[in-house]
Amino acid sequence: MGNPTAAMLVIGDEILSGRTRDTNTNHLAKELTNRGIRLREARVVADDHDGIVAAVKALSAAYDHVFTSGGIGPTHDDITADAVAAAFGAPIDVREDAHEILKAHYQRTGLELNEARLRMARIPEGATLIDNPVSSAPGFILGNVHVMAGVPAIFEAMVAGVLPTLTGGDPLLSQMIDVHRGEGEIAAALKALAAKFPDLSFGSYPYQRNGAHGTQLVVRGTDAGLLDRAMVELAELAQ
Amino acid sequence: MGNPTAAMLVIGDEILSGRTRDTNTNHLAKELTNRGIRLREARVVADDHDGIVAAVKALSAAYDHVFTSGGIGPTHDDITADAVAAAFGAPIDVREDAHEILKAHYQRTGLELNEARLRMARIPEGATLIDNPVSSAPGFILGNVHVMAGVPAIFEAMVAGVLPTLTGGDPLLSQMIDVHRGEGEIAAALKALAAKFPDLSFGSYPYQRNGAHGTQLVVRGTDAGLLDRAMVELAELAQ
Repeated sequence: MGNPTAAMLVIGDEILSGRTRDTNTNHLAKELTNRGIRLREARVVADDHDGIVAAVKALSAAYDHVFTSGGIGPTHDDITADAVAAAFGAPIDVREDAHEILKAHYQRTGLELNEARLRMARIPEGATLIDNPVSSAPGFILGNVHVMAGVPAIFEAMVAGVLPTLTGGDPLLSQMIDVHRGEGEIAAALKALAAKFPDLSFGSYPYQRNGAHGTQLVVRGTDAGLLDRAMVELAELAQ
Repeated sequence: MGNPTAAMLVIGDEILSGRTRDTNTNHLAKELTNRGIRLREARVVADDHDGIVAAVKALSAAYDHVFTSGGIGPTHDDITADAVAAAFGAPIDVREDAHEILKAHYQRTGLELNEARLRMARIPEGATLIDNPVSSAPGFILGNVHVMAGVPAIFEAMVAGVLPTLTGGDPLLSQMIDVHRGEGEIAAALKALAAKFPDLSFGSYPYQRNGAHGTQLVVRGTDAGLLDRAMVELAELAQ
């Protein structure tokens, strides 16, 4: 449909061990959908240099935009910045602009800007900083990769700062209708509708509520008029 | 560490649009961790044949086990079974054993086993069925790929049926301790501990609670004695 495409890369052992539930992908998905950018793939990888490099290379080659979350803090397992730099063959070191931001933050808070914290000023050459209004340590954009924090409040603030700078597409609109019938009963009619409206996508999601089975039908597309016409036909299925 | 490895593949436009929040990955992650199988990667892809085939091929070659969720219902966008069959070059058609299961289910429920529902009996040649105690339509195992439903209650029931059949490894144990200090203050000491205990992994997760900052330190490994020794040293950090 010609809309820009995107991928999400979540980095962190704690997601893969089940300790932490990733909520950043769902947040990004909604925000991108509103902006008309299609999230086409999401991946979760461990805190492993080679694994991150491979995923960054694969996703940045395949999609218009890549968003990462996690691994940019002060500890030894925060290796995302170095891995993204390696993926692009970019040199990386403590950068003066990021260093100044951290200096000001730690001066304000009265905490020490020690060696570990200084690692958060490691920014690849050629990268643009992403503002962190929550805890100062910046993210960055290198090529088409947006490197952001894993802590949801910071991730969300960074997304809010970055999205307005991206060229969106026609927003993906959706309409839905509840059908008090099983998915299998309306599948044939739904398939025929999908063939009749090739520019729309039709999803069906079975549910069980108060003991009753039903199906939520969702139609998505960028053309509001087409959506309306499809909804008229979907409503007939619901009868 | 010699433990079996695994990957999760979530299939569905509704996850990537943000409509639905994936909970199956977190559930599987916890179950695998308990069983000593390392979840090393998770991916979410769209309801797109080529995308599913490519992901199944990549993950099944890279890890000991692959688990998929989603796309095995009766509607036109349920294409997982055919895509997995294609990834392995296996023929696929309605299979008699799966057909019998569906027949019995629809006879019991008094609903019609129509053409759409019959698609749920499409099982690749050579696959082993996975029991679905919730709604009957089976999943299957082909090669090292476990194909399961997306509806969480069904996914979880299938996981519960499948996991005992897999050879696990030493369970990954973890211990944690709260430190009322910023992540950046204990990062150097944590890095030194990580170097001292190369068979353990150390994670640090900053939090803010009732206005106070702190860090949760988590150490993971398979050797309970080593973990205890590391915890003694971690406890010193917490003072």
